[in-house]
Amino acid sequence: MSVSLIGAGPGDPGLLTRRGAELLAGAEVVIYDRLITRELLELTPAGAELINVGKAPGASTPQSEINAQLIEHGRAGRRVVRLKGGDPFVFGRGGEEAEALREAGVDYEVVPGVSSAFAAPAAAGIPVTHRGMASSVTVVTGHVGDRSAPGGVDWHSLGRAGGTLVILMGMSERAQIAAELIGGGRHADTPVAVVHWGTTGDQQVVRSTLGRLSAIELPAPSTIVVGPVAALELGSTTTVPGSP
Amino acid sequence: MSVSLIGAGPGDPGLLTRRGAELLAGAEVVIYDRLITRELLELTPAGAELINVGKAPGASTPQSEINAQLIEHGRAGRRVVRLKGGDPFVFGRGGEEAEALREAGVDYEVVPGVSSAFAAPAAAGIPVTHRGMASSVTVVTGHVGDRSAPGGVDWHSLGRAGGTLVILMGMSERAQIAAELIGGGRHADTPVAVVHWGTTGDQQVVRSTLGRLSAIELPAPSTIVVGPVAALELGSTTTVPGSP
Repeated sequence: MSVSLIGAGPGDPGLLTRRGAELLAGAEVVIYDRLITRELLELTPAGAELINVGKAPGASTPQSEINAQLIEHGRAGRRVVRLKGGDPFVFGRGGEEAEALREAGVDYEVVPGVSSAFAAPAAAGIPVTHRGMASSVTVVTGHVGDRSAPGGVDWHSLGRAGGTLVILMGMSERAQIAAELIGGGRHADTPVAVVHWGTTGDQQVVRSTLGRLSAIELPAPSTIVVGPVAALELGSTTTVPGSP
Repeated sequence: MSVSLIGAGPGDPGLLTRRGAELLAGAEVVIYDRLITRELLELTPAGAELINVGKAPGASTPQSEINAQLIEHGRAGRRVVRLKGGDPFVFGRGGEEAEALREAGVDYEVVPGVSSAFAAPAAAGIPVTHRGMASSVTVVTGHVGDRSAPGGVDWHSLGRAGGTLVILMGMSERAQIAAELIGGGRHADTPVAVVHWGTTGDQQVVRSTLGRLSAIELPAPSTIVVGPVAALELGSTTTVPGSP
């Protein structure tokens, strides 16, 4: 009957929302991204059609083709779930999918998810805000891109501004990002943490400083945290049963 | 046996995580804030002790007293849930509670939640990032405070920087915030949306511009969104069954 744009959360299947799990359990078609884990797909009913639109970095289905598939299956009257890592409206291109569905006259529902921008740091014991250390947090993607483009990221200004900085998908550009942030005014000795596959059983955390960010080698998906809070380690002291 | 610091999400009980719901269902003591809805408390088992530590604005239990209660019940070997609106590590003072528990030697677990900083705008149809409009989002609280304090908010700089700005708990200071942002360089005609009780049945949304923010009258809890995306209306077109 309609399409559900669901935020799957940061990776741990326990961090999927109840509403997301309910819709997933009733799905007839699930269109999912590269970072969706097997544990999440196991929540779909037997017989559901699973469509992977993000097979590998650089080999993903173009956004226009994903939009067309959402519209096609939605128009066919199937219960469609579009399962996206994190939150669909935070660097998830969910806004573009919503626009395409609205223009096509296909009903849709948006179900927010736990953003990895906050949960990956938390899984490493880092609160993105903390009394006396950071009273703001800025989330950006690491595509340096054209600064003059509408909505483009001005890294130099981000260096000048205070608060915690969380950079998603920034590992390939990390040397340039660090240089621009330092050029903007952030100290080279500002604490940095890189969290790979935060909240999952494959989680790895490396801590260093902004000046040494380029020496950190972790593959995607990794979240970079810049600021005094990156030195904190306030993560769970209990073992979480049921987590991967 | 231990204390769970759980993010309850933005209000809609469907946006609680599966892990959060599981822990809540097994709780013996639930220590909760003012913004926790009745529907969420109904997920606790019969016989659980419910402790409200945020009865009214200005009449809340001091943080030190909350920390002491968490430690006391945790040491007594009870299954304690600390239920906090949104995410415990995003303006939730969860970092302070984790620090207190760690110092006291009480085991704890942190369960991230859906932050209202992203979900309240989403519920109003606003993606906080959107291609060609915003490639960064900054989340702050509206306490103007002392700019020279460590980690204090420099509103003037936030005015100069680009990207979407989400202001939590900012309605009482909205006139001063708008003036500082405009002084820093944001245009007075920048779109603004204020979302009251986003994701719940009591949700209200008012849209205007930064120059007219001070004229918007909505009580707490309200989330202020500043930036071009605040003019978008890409919310669900379907009625969500089971939502309040």
